[in-house]
Amino acid sequence: MKLIMAVVQDKDSNRLSQALVEHNFRATKLASTGGFLRSGNTTFMIGVEDIRVDKALQIINDNCKHRDQLVAPVSPMGGNADSYVPYPVEVEVGGATVFVLPIEQFHQF
Amino acid sequence: MKLIMAVVQDKDSNRLSQALVEHNFRATKLASTGGFLRSGNTTFMIGVEDIRVDKALQIINDNCKHRDQLVAPVSPMGGNADSYVPYPVEVEVGGATVFVLPIEQFHQF
Amino acid sequence: MKLIMAVVQDKDSNRLSQALVEHNFRATKLASTGGFLRSGNTTFMIGVEDIRVDKALQIINDNCKHRDQLVAPVSPMGGNADSYVPYPVEVEVGGATVFVLPIEQFHQF
Ligand code: NI
Ligand code: NI
Ligand code: NI
Repeated sequence: MKLIMAVVQDKDSNRLSQALVEHNFRATKLASTGGFLRSGNTTFMIGVEDIRVDKALQIINDNCKHRDQLVAPVSPMGGNADSYVPYPVEVEVGGATVFVLPIEQFHQF
Repeated sequence: MKLIMAVVQDKDSNRLSQALVEHNFRATKLASTGGFLRSGNTTFMIGVEDIRVDKALQIINDNCKHRDQLVAPVSPMGGNADSYVPYPVEVEVGGATVFVLPIEQFHQF
Repeated sequence: MKLIMAVVQDKDSNRLSQALVEHNFRATKLASTGGFLRSGNTTFMIGVEDIRVDKALQIINDNCKHRDQLVAPVSPMGGNADSYVPYPVEVEVGGATVFVLPIEQFHQF
């Protein structure tokens, strides 16, 4: 068994939860803030048999991978027109920071 | 020293806290949701000397063990009478998922 | 790489966050309660290269060290005058409980 601690963006959190359930992984979510990823984030604790660690990592990668996203500009409602950008802007979203920890004992009571 | 991470149901959380304090274990509680256990849950982080790991596990087992509980039926106040069950129902409560992690260093500042 | 889990008092939390950022450490904060430290506390998860573990520990010590603080007495506004202490009182603040965990894999997606 290993314990995977994965810090992911809130916006990827539900999708990752669902994908883990579909593949019979059991995770607990810890409320977390700031740090590894700029915006709000969630820390997943996932207990995984050794032989399934790679599969779990692949699911995290598939659902939380860093990618660039085009965001449509918001018109400057009474804001500073000087800073208005009239074309889509590329922003970075997603990304995950993942630790795989050894465990000495695992119990279910 | 070991670090015990124990995910327990909210309803067992206070009882476990008290039992740990009574036996001089020091724990931190992390707010957690979903996953290993269906309903709301709490993750205990407990720093434990090697020689006391078994005692800590026993306390977790004693206070959070999975058990079946009879729940009195709730009468269907304007609800769907078809689904009303007029006798106590057995539901599963409790249970704990526990990881014992090795640690390389322990410090108290 | 190591994973440092540090439980610190809420009142030291912001200062520690800033000091870690200044030194290019990346941390995630988990909401936590009670336990190792009496008042409200925060658990920092910090991923650290082996060679920088000592530096991270030093920063935690510098910013969260246990110390005694003189607190000016509050006058007993309609309270129990019998318990009024007319001189500054020494209270203990700060302190950190720190676990350094080995990790088997570290990934950034
Ligand atoms: Ni990018
Ligand atoms: Ni059962
Ligand atoms: Ni002191």
